[in-house]
Amino acid sequence: MLFGLNGNDRKVQMLDAANREVVEAMQSADPVLVDVRSAKSVLPELKSPLVLHAGPPLPFEKMTGPAQGALIGVALYEKWASTPEQARAMLERGEIALDSCHHHNAVGPMAGATSGSMPVLVVQDASSGRTAYAILNEGIGAVLRFGAYNDEVQDRLTWFEEEFGPTLSAALRHAGGVPLKPIMSKALLMGDEMHQRNAAASLMFFQALMPHLVATATGDRLLRAVNFLGQTDQFFLNLAMAAGKIIGDAGQAVNGGSIVTAMCRNGVEFGLRVSGLGNSWWTGPVNRPQGMYFAGYGPEDGNPDIGDSAILETIGLGGMALPAAPAVIGFVGSGSFEDAQEIFQRERGIVVGTQPSFQIPTLDGQAALLGIDVRLVVSSGVLPLINTGIAHRVAGIGQIGAGTVSPPLVAFEQAAKALAGTLAP
Amino acid sequence: MLFGLNGNDRKVQMLDAANREVVEAMQSADPVLVDVRSAKSVLPELKSPLVLHAGPPLPFEKMTGPAQGALIGVALYEKWASTPEQARAMLERGEIALDSCHHHNAVGPMAGATSGSMPVLVVQDASSGRTAYAILNEGIGAVLRFGAYNDEVQDRLTWFEEEFGPTLSAALRHAGGVPLKPIMSKALLMGDEMHQRNAAASLMFFQALMPHLVATATGDRLLRAVNFLGQTDQFFLNLAMAAGKIIGDAGQAVNGGSIVTAMCRNGVEFGLRVSGLGNSWWTGPVNRPQGMYFAGYGPEDGNPDIGDSAILETIGLGGMALPAAPAVIGFVGSGSFEDAQEIFQRERGIVVGTQPSFQIPTLDGQAALLGIDVRLVVSSGVLPLINTGIAHRVAGIGQIGAGTVSPPLVAFEQAAKALAGTLAP
Repeated sequence: MLFGLNGNDRKVQMLDAANREVVEAMQSADPVLVDVRSAKSVLPELKSPLVLHAGPPLPFEKMTGPAQGALIGVALYEKWASTPEQARAMLERGEIALDSCHHHNAVGPMAGATSGSMPVLVVQDASSGRTAYAILNEGIGAVLRFGAYNDEVQDRLTWFEEEFGPTLSAALRHAGGVPLKPIMSKALLMGDEMHQRNAAASLMFFQALMPHLVATATGDRLLRAVNFLGQTDQFFLNLAMAAGKIIGDAGQAVNGGSIVTAMCRNGVEFGLRVSGLGNSWWTGPVNRPQGMYFAGYGPEDGNPDIGDSAILETIGLGGMALPAAPAVIGFVGSGSFEDAQEIFQRERGIVVGTQPSFQIPTLDGQAALLGIDVRLVVSSGVLPLINTGIAHRVAGIGQIGAGTVSPPLVAFEQAAKALAGTLAP
Repeated sequence: MLFGLNGNDRKVQMLDAANREVVEAMQSADPVLVDVRSAKSVLPELKSPLVLHAGPPLPFEKMTGPAQGALIGVALYEKWASTPEQARAMLERGEIALDSCHHHNAVGPMAGATSGSMPVLVVQDASSGRTAYAILNEGIGAVLRFGAYNDEVQDRLTWFEEEFGPTLSAALRHAGGVPLKPIMSKALLMGDEMHQRNAAASLMFFQALMPHLVATATGDRLLRAVNFLGQTDQFFLNLAMAAGKIIGDAGQAVNGGSIVTAMCRNGVEFGLRVSGLGNSWWTGPVNRPQGMYFAGYGPEDGNPDIGDSAILETIGLGGMALPAAPAVIGFVGSGSFEDAQEIFQRERGIVVGTQPSFQIPTLDGQAALLGIDVRLVVSSGVLPLINTGIAHRVAGIGQIGAGTVSPPLVAFEQAAKALAGTLAP
């Protein structure tokens, strides 16, 4: 089963050594939110009609409802099309190019649609200088990431672009950047696992930014920013995702070993990257989340798993740190607090290290897990547990529940097999 | 041992019925922070040289260092004296009157010193209209509540009076008040037990107030308020204490039963009130907190237990809700998370009810404990566990540690005995 990747020969020892290096690199990454910039100013390729999306690459016609809706919404927002029908036709004819967020140092939740005029969070690794980008969290209700593109969505995107993004930028530059790891450490002590729940982290970011916001904005502009930040309790999700991208990429840069450095889903395929396998995606069909549905909805309404947010489980948060967030356990239908502790003990078996900066208080300060080893996943059959929102399969209806989902084992098996190939004499 | 307070006769049944009423009243209380006002404007008796202090009444000469220091600081702040020596002499001669905060619907942490010019939180019970008051939290370092009275302390008190209090008042009136129970409920999901730790509650209050603060203040005045609130992670402690006073007084108003409705300490004596025993204090000598000391300090430096903050344990928070705050458990030296769960199970034995609004997520949402019955304390010998900061015994040095402390059993025994007397034929 392990394609010769276990045992004690020299090649396996080198793999183990590389893995230690990967874990150290992931531990040392130091993501700092330095600015909010127009996407096309930091990713010049977005000056053309190109839209980034969550998960491994996927053509428009294969995408699920929310992903297609989000892309139609972007075409309208960017004024490439003036009606949804025109937008759809352009996307079907390939007149709007598509690519994975991950191919442009970016990550996006749910559909993840990212285009040039949108302001993006600019997160820099103080250790390496590497940069990651993520769009701003839109809050709940009618939002682009669930495929909605009505006036409310368009108005919010325009406000992001014209006022809120520049307001955040001025405050962040006044602050000299906001280090994210200290906020994430403290949030784990306050019931966040930073995927399903970012209530504490969002409050701490709000608090950290506020003196700089009041120093750089006034009047209604300030009030609108304060209200939006105060009401958006998943605002930090996108910051945590960009931090996760920084941490994953720090491991990827080692260019060796068998550690998972990214996990993402496009609604059809799950994809992962491995530290010793370059930028290839190892994929398999996504599963459907299991969990709790809001009143009036059921499993038949749910979209298959989608979004880049599994970058959080990649770095040991979200479902990999479930005991840190007791309030999430019931919400995602994972049973009791004791069940969550058992899940954590099980997941411990597929990682080769821990993240000492991230402690789980309900486990007496045990460190969060770090470094999912594809070999350990394949040999044990234990899969990372991913916390996730459940999108309605029809574009624009939005979130209809929350739950957990497992990635397909085949993606890990293929990666392990490829890794064995690279080590073959 | 129980002075005839157990068993099944009619008087005991009436006591049990009264206790149910007390618990219901405490459950129904709905504390709302409506304003911040000058103490003398809401408590006209404070127009004279009168200072309120924590705990049951105690003359100046019997007080411990921090309490004496705080009173000297107040005499300087109110300009009744111009030197510390003069202040001490006036206090020793009784030229400045003293009384318990609790006798004036107020509560204060540590020394609890409250005088007419200080702004106080005005918390109103939306159910009954009853009001409770508490001074503003000063943050850490040199602070009046630990007996410091240097320029830094005086300058902060002056800023509270002249700028910060009125700024908060305007924002609160703009908000139409801030209900405290929803914040407290959410904070329990975020690692606060609201005595030793109010990190989440303080952030949520900050967030709730901020839109109203930016709508009513500008420039440096706004910036100073934002900075102080943002940096004072125990700011909510005093709000929680006033909420606790509202909840305790709701039980007290039933005027029957054997439920503890207030617990407080003045550094020498612990005192408690019982729902069926009017406003009498049942007292005993305070214990010394056991816990962890900051580097360079030890038990010989610690002041005996002091402050009105045990009102939080009275309503089932603080040490009575330890599993809600895993990060606090180690800080107060209470062992592991499992130990905290055992403490909770033990304390369950001395209460007659629960507070459904306050759920403890790490116990799968079990409700917090409510309604400490003096009979159950006396018959079991199990005492409420109180989380507390440890003050240096010398005025003004400040906090030197944190720990837990038990009240003296004799206070509960005397109350039970008195209660038996009221029921005697």
